[in-house]
Amino acid sequence: MANKVRIGLLGAGRIGKLHGENLAHAVPNADLYAVADPFMNDVTRAWAADMGIEKCYDDPEMIFGDPTIEAVFICSSTATHADFIMRAAQTGKHIFCEKPIDTKLAKIEEALAAVKKAGVKLQVGFVRRFDHNHKAVRDTVASGKLGKPNLIKVTSRDPDHQPMSYIKVSGGIFMDMTIHDFDMVRYLAGSEVTEVTAYGAALSGAGYEEYGDVDTAIVMMKFENGALGVIDNSRAAHYGYDQRTEVHCDQGCVQVANDLNNTAMISSAAGVEVAKPTWFFLERYNNAFIAEAKAFIDAVLNDTDTLVTGFDGLQPVKIAMAANLSMKEGRPVKLSEIE
Amino acid sequence: MANKVRIGLLGAGRIGKLHGENLAHAVPNADLYAVADPFMNDVTRAWAADMGIEKCYDDPEMIFGDPTIEAVFICSSTATHADFIMRAAQTGKHIFCEKPIDTKLAKIEEALAAVKKAGVKLQVGFVRRFDHNHKAVRDTVASGKLGKPNLIKVTSRDPDHQPMSYIKVSGGIFMDMTIHDFDMVRYLAGSEVTEVTAYGAALSGAGYEEYGDVDTAIVMMKFENGALGVIDNSRAAHYGYDQRTEVHCDQGCVQVANDLNNTAMISSAAGVEVAKPTWFFLERYNNAFIAEAKAFIDAVLNDTDTLVTGFDGLQPVKIAMAANLSMKEGRPVKLSEIE
Amino acid sequence: MANKVRIGLLGAGRIGKLHGENLAHAVPNADLYAVADPFMNDVTRAWAADMGIEKCYDDPEMIFGDPTIEAVFICSSTATHADFIMRAAQTGKHIFCEKPIDTKLAKIEEALAAVKKAGVKLQVGFVRRFDHNHKAVRDTVASGKLGKPNLIKVTSRDPDHQPMSYIKVSGGIFMDMTIHDFDMVRYLAGSEVTEVTAYGAALSGAGYEEYGDVDTAIVMMKFENGALGVIDNSRAAHYGYDQRTEVHCDQGCVQVANDLNNTAMISSAAGVEVAKPTWFFLERYNNAFIAEAKAFIDAVLNDTDTLVTGFDGLQPVKIAMAANLSMKEGRPVKLSEIE
Amino acid sequence: MANKVRIGLLGAGRIGKLHGENLAHAVPNADLYAVADPFMNDVTRAWAADMGIEKCYDDPEMIFGDPTIEAVFICSSTATHADFIMRAAQTGKHIFCEKPIDTKLAKIEEALAAVKKAGVKLQVGFVRRFDHNHKAVRDTVASGKLGKPNLIKVTSRDPDHQPMSYIKVSGGIFMDMTIHDFDMVRYLAGSEVTEVTAYGAALSGAGYEEYGDVDTAIVMMKFENGALGVIDNSRAAHYGYDQRTEVHCDQGCVQVANDLNNTAMISSAAGVEVAKPTWFFLERYNNAFIAEAKAFIDAVLNDTDTLVTGFDGLQPVKIAMAANLSMKEGRPVKLSEIE
Repeated sequence: MANKVRIGLLGAGRIGKLHGENLAHAVPNADLYAVADPFMNDVTRAWAADMGIEKCYDDPEMIFGDPTIEAVFICSSTATHADFIMRAAQTGKHIFCEKPIDTKLAKIEEALAAVKKAGVKLQVGFVRRFDHNHKAVRDTVASGKLGKPNLIKVTSRDPDHQPMSYIKVSGGIFMDMTIHDFDMVRYLAGSEVTEVTAYGAALSGAGYEEYGDVDTAIVMMKFENGALGVIDNSRAAHYGYDQRTEVHCDQGCVQVANDLNNTAMISSAAGVEVAKPTWFFLERYNNAFIAEAKAFIDAVLNDTDTLVTGFDGLQPVKIAMAANLSMKEGRPVKLSEIE
Repeated sequence: MANKVRIGLLGAGRIGKLHGENLAHAVPNADLYAVADPFMNDVTRAWAADMGIEKCYDDPEMIFGDPTIEAVFICSSTATHADFIMRAAQTGKHIFCEKPIDTKLAKIEEALAAVKKAGVKLQVGFVRRFDHNHKAVRDTVASGKLGKPNLIKVTSRDPDHQPMSYIKVSGGIFMDMTIHDFDMVRYLAGSEVTEVTAYGAALSGAGYEEYGDVDTAIVMMKFENGALGVIDNSRAAHYGYDQRTEVHCDQGCVQVANDLNNTAMISSAAGVEVAKPTWFFLERYNNAFIAEAKAFIDAVLNDTDTLVTGFDGLQPVKIAMAANLSMKEGRPVKLSEIE
Repeated sequence: MANKVRIGLLGAGRIGKLHGENLAHAVPNADLYAVADPFMNDVTRAWAADMGIEKCYDDPEMIFGDPTIEAVFICSSTATHADFIMRAAQTGKHIFCEKPIDTKLAKIEEALAAVKKAGVKLQVGFVRRFDHNHKAVRDTVASGKLGKPNLIKVTSRDPDHQPMSYIKVSGGIFMDMTIHDFDMVRYLAGSEVTEVTAYGAALSGAGYEEYGDVDTAIVMMKFENGALGVIDNSRAAHYGYDQRTEVHCDQGCVQVANDLNNTAMISSAAGVEVAKPTWFFLERYNNAFIAEAKAFIDAVLNDTDTLVTGFDGLQPVKIAMAANLSMKEGRPVKLSEIE
Repeated sequence: MANKVRIGLLGAGRIGKLHGENLAHAVPNADLYAVADPFMNDVTRAWAADMGIEKCYDDPEMIFGDPTIEAVFICSSTATHADFIMRAAQTGKHIFCEKPIDTKLAKIEEALAAVKKAGVKLQVGFVRRFDHNHKAVRDTVASGKLGKPNLIKVTSRDPDHQPMSYIKVSGGIFMDMTIHDFDMVRYLAGSEVTEVTAYGAALSGAGYEEYGDVDTAIVMMKFENGALGVIDNSRAAHYGYDQRTEVHCDQGCVQVANDLNNTAMISSAAGVEVAKPTWFFLERYNNAFIAEAKAFIDAVLNDTDTLVTGFDGLQPVKIAMAANLSMKEGRPVKLSEIE
């Protein structure tokens, strides 16, 4: 078991199970050894057995206290992320943490300081960076063959509304949904956002306005390198998960379309029909979840930097805060205003 | 010749000749009878003979003074548009006028008042409304089958830089280039713009900043019906004319891609190559120019409203002014501020 | 009028008018001067006046006898083609002739001998060679950048059934419809067909079997250069004109898709809809008809070979005969059997 | 373990390992318990341990003799398939068998008779039936919404040459490669092939002619239901795995394109580049392999017919024999001639 990383999984909800299954089956160098969940029960124990997980706990301290565990996957509720990061750092374990680290800057910075002090690795779960399509955009830009990036565009639309009970506690569209796109624009531009202006509206009739939230949004950005950017979002595209990126550079453009359910085209007198985009993130980013877990394990085994750092976890939260302020006050907001 | 409209062409430059050739050959109900150009010469006379034009003048008054001429195509320099509109109105001729009517609101309003008083028809040359692609977007939105429009997106990129001598007197990107897109968003949204925020940057190294101009821009908009909109522009896409529109509605989305030079796909070990978009507006909007001329002639013959009115000529100028002010002052600007 | 070619048009039916309009408006170096049609009447005279045609005849000899006419466009019924070619050759006029030259080999050869003897130019109306898509395939193959062609594929499907009255006298699917594809495979392969095997079936229920004809066909071919080829046809695709070609070469493949009515994509929960292919040859090959007329006029003015020669007119007729024989006798047929 | 099927894997080469990994990780109801391979060694044992396989044998009789094993996956060399099928049938085990069952009709029929007598289930590994694209074509045809199928087209091209040592013993292109396409046309047409005519050529310079084989082929077919079909093949497409199917029906057409590595489009003055098709069958049919294994396990658990029967294994072998005979004798061959 010399070339494997022994892992403790924190949280066995939907996203925890997704990571658990990938670690068990699709990441050869991962040794998924233990899982802790406050609601540990027989169903979860059966799932764990199927995954070949040896230890099931309800107390996460059983994982932090096990010196054979080298890394943790933090897939628990957002409120626990920062504390678990700090405990893992204190106990010398490498950390994969689902986004966001926290919704408060001070807490994020405290967690990052602990990571830095301990010298452990931290990778934040911005999975889209590992998608074959977005990565092709990034790689093309980064290759420099089209020159410098000038304009970054991201379209990101969920297939359908989440329950209003979820929206109520989501932190708003920018913190809950656009945060992925704020990471994406940084990734594609290779530069930091310095200013945002955000427009939002509740147009769907689903009731977002009751929670001070919106279902449709556009955010314009300026980057340190002079480039401009724009993101458009909606909560309910209806036809599937609409996830497209596009970067215009000095000498040309690179853009990606959605993955479709299949390539079929049906032509008749009535019209021509093609397949819909894949339904949601599980379908679209399935391989990307595997790739991000492999990348984390590789970083641990090879002692290299992770591809999505703690700083990468911090910045999108700041941008989301700036977007919220911009929409609220109806003005451009500089990132330097956010503290 | 009962079902034909006798036309006088004002201006025989590039755009004048384009309209002249369409009227001569591709618009069966047009009787292109006379042309006036201050630089009338033998080359232009030979061209006119080829087109079957009977009268060539250097003085536009020869056209305004001919009672057999029922309509004029104003294709002269922008500075003359409003005056020619007023003369045509005074002499009872229907008017097709290239955009923009003028760059001053007062002058536009004076011209529109003259048109209204005379009861003649006026169509402004926003040719993209007649493009098969954008029209398909508009028709889908207007059909209501996707519900109300929520988000209007326009990408508009010229293939390459204009000479700096042109840029110097162009009035800036918003008045010169984005003005077409400001018309397009109104056309697609079926609603008026109420506020804009504009970001711009000179990133190409071509020297736009020397004239206080930019080569890359994004403009966000709010519409009266609650929808949001965004336009992105650049002066030099390099791969051709990038002209795409997209509207997200309550129940779905309609979008169009570029027309390509052909549908060829060449696959080898080196990669897969497809054709570039058509080069520029002459290639892309060739059929749209014919369609707009036919629509004008039909409006005259059938005594119906034109499809691009004087008001449609006024509004994009106001939006361009608001965008300029927004970029200059770094703040959202309401259309109601523009007078 | 030094750089123009004076033309007499023979036949003012659908295809004659199509060529007449292109010659009048879209081919600058053509001087369309006269038209002859056995059914000359007021409607045709009015059309001719609109086209700026000076002379209208019912007797084609008025055109052959006019020494100022340098070239003829033969757009009359198939039965007259060969005789008109011979008369034009005898009177020293260059010849554009719609396909087929004739349905009998002896007659075609007689006509070609007359052309050769007279030294006039002859271009046969295989218009698809001038289509932007198929031409891109041919140009890629001819460039040699993919190596030698190995496999030529043509799909050619009409949008809907012709009247059975037409089918009855059409000469059968291979002579009437596939003849275009037989030309296309020669054009794409740059090599002669040496053998064919044809399968056909009457599957549509429209009644082709009553006339010994089929509505669905596949023809396999061998070429002199060793390549293989295949054509598939149907009389009624229903969704529009399905015209695709594909060539596999030593190092890769080039293929073209259909031209569509527009690039719109409409996405909703119900599915994703794109535009249908353009309806039929008038829509699909509009620009190709102009290009072939220009190419003929250029060949005359520059005294160069035409791009579709008399031999190019002969070979597809032979291949069609071989295909008929193959389908009838249920065996491969060598072109050398056809005399 | 009540709802799981205990499986013995026969053969641990490339395709055996592929199925083993899918059964271990991606097919929840499979209990992969034992593996037998005549070359069993430490590497294979380590692989088996990783897969959670309990028993490793070099003698397949250890699997046939274990009454707890309910089903076998036959992934051994072709020469063993029929005998292993018979042994599995005799010992009452359900059978998944890679294609082909055998290359001799008598042997196949003997094996199928044993299966029938034993009443066990047999599924043959024609994996493409489970591909999302081809399945969409089949499902559309089978739905009847486009009417009856009239013309079935299959393009199937491998990315690059196999070693000549492989070609030498492959049985020829029709038995080795086209056999998948012969299955595909039956699947898409929903009807049996009654006649074939095959053309083939060795054009690549790789030396197929030395073994009486070809690298480029076209096969035309007639079906019992009156439809026509055509397959084109090559051994070396160079740009990836070219796997497209298309069915024309009474009222329209359904077709699929290749899966691409990603959806990126890179546009510059130099041209527009898109991604290549996925490289080969492992990339293209990865999910289809999982789906076929699941389908087999489901058929066992639910006691339903398998989706690819023994008869489905027999027919493509017959068609391949007919194609060989057709190419050899230069004539159409009826399936009824093959015995």
